[in-house]
Amino acid sequence: MPQLRIALAQVNTTVGDLDGNAALVLEWTRRAHGAGAHVVVFPEMALTGYPVEDLALRRSFATAATTSLTTLARQLAEAGCGEVAAVVGYLDRDEVGPRNAVAVLHDGQVVATQFKHHLPNYGVFDERRYFESGQTLDVVRVHGLEMGMVICEDIWQEGGPIAALGQAGVDLVVSPNASPYERDKDDQRLPLVRRRAAEAGAPLVYVNLVGGQDDLVFDGDSIAVGADGTLLARSPQFVEHLSVLDLDLPGGAARTDGEVGGFTVTRRTLHEEPLARYEPTGEPVVSQPLDELAEVWSALVVGLRDYVRKNGFRSVVLGLSGGIDSAVCAALAVDALGAENVYGVSMPSVYSSDHSRSDASELAERTGLHYEVQPIADMVAVFTGQLGLTGLAEENVQARCRGVTLMGLSNQHGHLVLATGNKTELAVGYSTIYGDAVGGFAPIKDVPKTLVWKLAEWRNSQADAPIPPNSITKPPSAELRPGQLDTDSLPDYHLLDSVLEDYVEGDRGYADLVAAGFAPELIDKVLRMVDAAEYKRRQYPPGTKITFRAFGRDRRLPITSGWREGK
Amino acid sequence: MPQLRIALAQVNTTVGDLDGNAALVLEWTRRAHGAGAHVVVFPEMALTGYPVEDLALRRSFATAATTSLTTLARQLAEAGCGEVAAVVGYLDRDEVGPRNAVAVLHDGQVVATQFKHHLPNYGVFDERRYFESGQTLDVVRVHGLEMGMVICEDIWQEGGPIAALGQAGVDLVVSPNASPYERDKDDQRLPLVRRRAAEAGAPLVYVNLVGGQDDLVFDGDSIAVGADGTLLARSPQFVEHLSVLDLDLPGGAARTDGEVGGFTVTRRTLHEEPLARYEPTGEPVVSQPLDELAEVWSALVVGLRDYVRKNGFRSVVLGLSGGIDSAVCAALAVDALGAENVYGVSMPSVYSSDHSRSDASELAERTGLHYEVQPIADMVAVFTGQLGLTGLAEENVQARCRGVTLMGLSNQHGHLVLATGNKTELAVGYSTIYGDAVGGFAPIKDVPKTLVWKLAEWRNSQADAPIPPNSITKPPSAELRPGQLDTDSLPDYHLLDSVLEDYVEGDRGYADLVAAGFAPELIDKVLRMVDAAEYKRRQYPPGTKITFRAFGRDRRLPITSGWREGK
Repeated sequence: MPQLRIALAQVNTTVGDLDGNAALVLEWTRRAHGAGAHVVVFPEMALTGYPVEDLALRRSFATAATTSLTTLARQLAEAGCGEVAAVVGYLDRDEVGPRNAVAVLHDGQVVATQFKHHLPNYGVFDERRYFESGQTLDVVRVHGLEMGMVICEDIWQEGGPIAALGQAGVDLVVSPNASPYERDKDDQRLPLVRRRAAEAGAPLVYVNLVGGQDDLVFDGDSIAVGADGTLLARSPQFVEHLSVLDLDLPGGAARTDGEVGGFTVTRRTLHEEPLARYEPTGEPVVSQPLDELAEVWSALVVGLRDYVRKNGFRSVVLGLSGGIDSAVCAALAVDALGAENVYGVSMPSVYSSDHSRSDASELAERTGLHYEVQPIADMVAVFTGQLGLTGLAEENVQARCRGVTLMGLSNQHGHLVLATGNKTELAVGYSTIYGDAVGGFAPIKDVPKTLVWKLAEWRNSQADAPIPPNSITKPPSAELRPGQLDTDSLPDYHLLDSVLEDYVEGDRGYADLVAAGFAPELIDKVLRMVDAAEYKRRQYPPGTKITFRAFGRDRRLPITSGWREGK
Repeated sequence: MPQLRIALAQVNTTVGDLDGNAALVLEWTRRAHGAGAHVVVFPEMALTGYPVEDLALRRSFATAATTSLTTLARQLAEAGCGEVAAVVGYLDRDEVGPRNAVAVLHDGQVVATQFKHHLPNYGVFDERRYFESGQTLDVVRVHGLEMGMVICEDIWQEGGPIAALGQAGVDLVVSPNASPYERDKDDQRLPLVRRRAAEAGAPLVYVNLVGGQDDLVFDGDSIAVGADGTLLARSPQFVEHLSVLDLDLPGGAARTDGEVGGFTVTRRTLHEEPLARYEPTGEPVVSQPLDELAEVWSALVVGLRDYVRKNGFRSVVLGLSGGIDSAVCAALAVDALGAENVYGVSMPSVYSSDHSRSDASELAERTGLHYEVQPIADMVAVFTGQLGLTGLAEENVQARCRGVTLMGLSNQHGHLVLATGNKTELAVGYSTIYGDAVGGFAPIKDVPKTLVWKLAEWRNSQADAPIPPNSITKPPSAELRPGQLDTDSLPDYHLLDSVLEDYVEGDRGYADLVAAGFAPELIDKVLRMVDAAEYKRRQYPPGTKITFRAFGRDRRLPITSGWREGK
């Protein structure tokens, strides 16, 4: 039976960085070649990064991407890797428009090209806005085996390219992906890959992107299964990884080409005959997905690390209030960047409690981050005195003086500012615009308050226990007026998160929530807050997305709106 | 020949405000009925407002919209308007998904329903994300005339519904629209409407939305043409308007139904026979579109007024620097809201020139707006002294102390803060995040600097001449350090705007710009600034869009990006 050694190159690309991504493909193809691989598969749009958003529409970018692809093919051959068939995603553009494309590079040439067919247009995806759909399938014969290609969404949809490949006949299917991390999504991937392998009647090699890109984080979790669904390889999540797998396949697939199932199938032959039999090199890695809290923590760490580094920063600064949100953000930053690159600032006001300072200071001691205290009383006094501010206006000035302080330290020392708000606060607008909302990145923007607590407890159960126990157990307070508690303005967080989960994630309306047993006054209060907070949410910095309906890129409500749910 | 009196109801709806929009439809149908109209046509999605964005995906909103529609049909009949056929756009939802829909309400019932076919997915439009495409055409017989309906984009595309109606046979086509204002776009509308009337072989009545919705402004400019292209009516721009038009038509269109041109055509009869002949009531209005600068000024005034009022504010506050941008914003605000609702604050620093104060004060005198002076020296001194800020960090603190001051006054007195930056600054990132970028709305966000000057001169040539001549003629300066001028950091604004026009609006790349004769160093400098400023632009408040590629909703570049044009 024909054999093939195939490498799953789970790499971390950067959008727009054609040179950097080409260098990455070159390096990992070298490694695959060094491991004796005959085929190496990279993630979706590896050469351009994913998602390129409006760059997809720029002609000069598409030209640069296709030029870069042909250069890369030559560079691979020059580096002695020409005999490896490298499957590399990129942005193409033809007379119809921009294309989400994949190419096979071999022997210095681009030997096959295929465009994505199913263009997802929901959630974080806007591909029907950016790309034209492909109707062709290039099947490449590698060492006597017919290899088909399907791009990401093409395996998430019934029918289409995978069914056509099954009809046309292939021995093997490879699939470059850029499938963002989502809580609980991993439960779907393996069964899906198995179903598609069965549909194609061939093994399926699914290679996913890893790393952070703005508010998305890709978890890797690349998978290979046999035609019968046997799990052959599964890469670890949230790290770059090269998995090398030996396949021993029946070969001899039927070889229909031309029009099949609505697609034009073209056969390209790199090597007509199978390889001489060789000795397979051991067992490939079969990783287990992480447990839920470990997985979320890893997503947040990687999302933060890549946002900071890919934007050219080395260090971050954040306010430490002694509360749970800033403590978790600091712990994430220390895990992502090392304590030596994290600067915490305690900014007490006249209303700050003693424990706000002692808990912040304890956090600094536990983690080893840089710590300083900058009282804001003098700043606040000038504004309130000169402008005659009282009540809410006075509360907000405190938060804003902290924002100006952090941005001043950022501008002076080059740190990126982290905003420490959580998803629950953002949902109901419980934050001060230009105050605690200041920053370049918001690590826990998509983490509900009750999950913040769970993550803190989980992280403390691991090495170092960075978070002061008192930050976890004390009642949350903004400390903007004497004796203030969050519960003065908000429902209990467990109840609030339940309503928000149903309203935001579950898309349930007022009537559904009443039917679910929530008190009408509670629903009314929460929904009014959520519906009125769109402007604040839009002004919040990006943060790592871990749910389907995160606030930010994939959820867009009108600012000006007369709609009030339940009225 | 059959006659018909048709009313073009160019109204100003609010997204999500089902009750308010239904009341608007009721009131304007009453007015149309009072004028003897047999048919009244409202803009696209009049009942829900446009664009509803993610509200389109909420089931509870779709349910509320369809319930509201049937209630409205009954209310119209109860108000004695049941005999008028009211063409009302709304959000529908069926087993396939959400629909951009239009209904005919008559005699207390919803008597016809049709879904939009061509779903625009470019520029400000995301309709392929939100709606499913319709394949049916309801043709309604009104007083012996066959009336077809096409929604907005359905007349911008060749073929499709309008061609099918032409084949099926109609005496008249009505078209509800939500077509945003764009500079120079009005040149396209009349010829387009004429082409489509010819294609349908029938008169076409095009009714457009008017008013501001977040960053969009709709200019009205509703049009009616005869089958031969004769302009019958044209409504004035930027105001609500009821145009009543008598048609005297041949009638007797062929009446094919069933499958026509890919659509299922259904005939519905309200009145089989024509009306008894009646006396037409005079000439309908045929307005001329405004001149370019008057048109842009009107768009900015209406966009600002509706954003402020529809968001529940009555007054605005803005910083007055003595410069041209804040002077133009103040003049717009006074035109939009009246001087009594505009609060200007001069916030001099130690680096502020004498003319910054005298020009601001002169502006206040010329316009009659509320004026106060709040020096920022004491605020700035605390931050720079305590935090040891120098250079750019010190410059930014000045802008941020102004931001905190304006937000403090906003919170204390309930004014909406206006950010006064222009499109040129935004493009190159020449602004301070959380400083001059603070605000709820940015009136001239999409106005290039050179156009700001032209608008100022134009406005001063009209009544009252609100803007101090010295604000127009003096060289622009941020005044954040001694003797600073914009030209220290930026190219000459005329040159800069030329490059930006080509790069942003024209989608030209580095090589195209070189070919156009710009100096490579200039292009390189400008493009680097533009490519690096995405984060700042995302944090800027919304502002009225007047070009195709405004920064904000319809232009989305990655923040994390290795792409540098021309490298």
